[in-house]
Amino acid sequence: MTSAPTPWTLADGRDLLFFSLPGHSSHPVPDRRPLPDQSVAQSELRFDRTTGQWVIIAASRQDRTYKPPPDQCPLCPGPSGTTSEIPAADYDVAVFENRFASLSGAGDAAFRLPPTGGDAFLSAPSHGRCEVICFSSDHTGSFAQLDFAQARLVVEAWVHRTAALTAMPGIAQVFCFENRGEEIGVTLTHPHGQIYGYPYLTPRTERMLREAHAHRERRGTNLFTDIVEQEVAAGSRIVARDDMFTAFVPFAARWPVEVHIYPNRFVRSLAELDPVERDGFTRMYLTILQRLDRLYSLPLPYMAAVHQYTDDETQREGCFHVEVISTRRSATKLKYLASSESAMEAFINDVAPESAAAALRRL
Amino acid sequence: MTSAPTPWTLADGRDLLFFSLPGHSSHPVPDRRPLPDQSVAQSELRFDRTTGQWVIIAASRQDRTYKPPPDQCPLCPGPSGTTSEIPAADYDVAVFENRFASLSGAGDAAFRLPPTGGDAFLSAPSHGRCEVICFSSDHTGSFAQLDFAQARLVVEAWVHRTAALTAMPGIAQVFCFENRGEEIGVTLTHPHGQIYGYPYLTPRTERMLREAHAHRERRGTNLFTDIVEQEVAAGSRIVARDDMFTAFVPFAARWPVEVHIYPNRFVRSLAELDPVERDGFTRMYLTILQRLDRLYSLPLPYMAAVHQYTDDETQREGCFHVEVISTRRSATKLKYLASSESAMEAFINDVAPESAAAALRRL
Repeated sequence: MTSAPTPWTLADGRDLLFFSLPGHSSHPVPDRRPLPDQSVAQSELRFDRTTGQWVIIAASRQDRTYKPPPDQCPLCPGPSGTTSEIPAADYDVAVFENRFASLSGAGDAAFRLPPTGGDAFLSAPSHGRCEVICFSSDHTGSFAQLDFAQARLVVEAWVHRTAALTAMPGIAQVFCFENRGEEIGVTLTHPHGQIYGYPYLTPRTERMLREAHAHRERRGTNLFTDIVEQEVAAGSRIVARDDMFTAFVPFAARWPVEVHIYPNRFVRSLAELDPVERDGFTRMYLTILQRLDRLYSLPLPYMAAVHQYTDDETQREGCFHVEVISTRRSATKLKYLASSESAMEAFINDVAPESAAAALRRL
Repeated sequence: MTSAPTPWTLADGRDLLFFSLPGHSSHPVPDRRPLPDQSVAQSELRFDRTTGQWVIIAASRQDRTYKPPPDQCPLCPGPSGTTSEIPAADYDVAVFENRFASLSGAGDAAFRLPPTGGDAFLSAPSHGRCEVICFSSDHTGSFAQLDFAQARLVVEAWVHRTAALTAMPGIAQVFCFENRGEEIGVTLTHPHGQIYGYPYLTPRTERMLREAHAHRERRGTNLFTDIVEQEVAAGSRIVARDDMFTAFVPFAARWPVEVHIYPNRFVRSLAELDPVERDGFTRMYLTILQRLDRLYSLPLPYMAAVHQYTDDETQREGCFHVEVISTRRSATKLKYLASSESAMEAFINDVAPESAAAALRRL
């Protein structure tokens, strides 16, 4: 359906890609900004032996672009080649490597994550990839306000980038996500998301896959498929459902607003959905985001996380789904992750999942 | 050193305890507030089969006291018995059961956490205990501003409450902590902390104990003792050290401000420290909190987590320590837990641990 993206290169060597709607094409100009060399600023991975987890130490990000005025937005089109990360008069969807990357240098075939389990301080280059995806050239608005064709193009760009990053040596997990709203710490208001290629399986994904493997051993079935069936049977937490997708507030939701969107048939990634199903996913995702903005009659700060898996031994039980969460617990109050959550990872949710689902069903 | 606390009972049956400085005594009056029955509002535990973790669903907390004006502070002394959680003309340190408790009903000998590993939605009463500890009757100020004797009394109250809650049937972990600052979501500014008795081992504690057990199997030594020795040898992340305690920024710090305080000899809890060591801990803890407030020349929002363990089989490798963390990454900016941290638990720290330690050493 979509033609191949147009590749371009920024002044400091970073990749830029243009995804275009049918009939459109991109006309980039040279990036003439004097940008510092990227290679000097690589971040570091450090292994925490008390938790068995990697932590990314990205000191160079401390100086990243912070709430610039609208006329200096680096995500708006920059026809002069001197003002923007996207040197072009216009674009539909653009993807580029993050200038302030937590993970970089992906594609080095010699890179190996060092073995853990030793007894000394352990670190490694923060090998991976961080991309920014601009949902639209329009500085205002949000994903929920995209028209169908534009949103569908973003989905297609996610499919493309997931495949490209997964194929890079040393990348273990590709994560497409959106942080939306100042309350989540967003420093650029132009509608955009991000795509991370991590060199390790993230802790939450690792744990979910472990639970799914244990479920397979015990029951012979897929954990996520079973849960969706049980949520449909229970009914009280369903937000929306059609012949292809089901959206619900999970039984043990950790956040005051939390909606999961699952396909009705088991697939591991957006790529495994056929074009008609990708249309269906786009519609369901837009429906959910639009309802979330109506929940408190003001734009909801949210995090949207696209969970995708490969079919290798480790990830085979993972089921594609999207989790949208928000810290807004009422029109005027935010949920904070304080000591119970931040220091002990014991989550306390002040909103009953059934109430949250009922409110979202009514909208 | 400290005499036994004076027990009292609030109008709705909740426990209140007064801890007094030598020579002081408490003179509570009856609590004459018309309070609703506590027993109707018990929260719920729900098991998340995708992560293997319990989540606390505490819908009744949604209406908890939110930023009251100073003259209605429920933690200030209430000599009339009609205005405060602490019906007395004055107090030194007071501890009471939280009126808006995430966990309650601890002490029911018949309570058992239901077995996990089944294939249906699993829930249980949110059995446990949530206490509030007022560090001082003075509405203003902070823990860092307490004089030594007052801070030492708080430590003694922590010892007392940890022993009392640990002895209650069905409590698996006791967690003393302080959330400080509006940026952390604190809704009462009166200096206070909290004490939770969880019916399960929290996810982070469980993981730390698992790593420590594996280290014992592999090396025959305690993981935390080894790490403190290595931090001392490395030197670059040490913040302060004396003959009894060592404070450092950990090698793989997850937060822009993160200081861990460990005893130089292995103990599992404050109770295992002798009185002279408790004096030493109080001094070191005050030193660290005072430096943290000087870091940006403004009161630092922080979370302080007291990690304590019992000597049973599961917890034996746990080493008592305190972790103080903050989301403030500069004088004007906060670190937000956005999608990488909140959805994937992949932490990105924008501040090099060595820089943070150097700044705190200089103060």
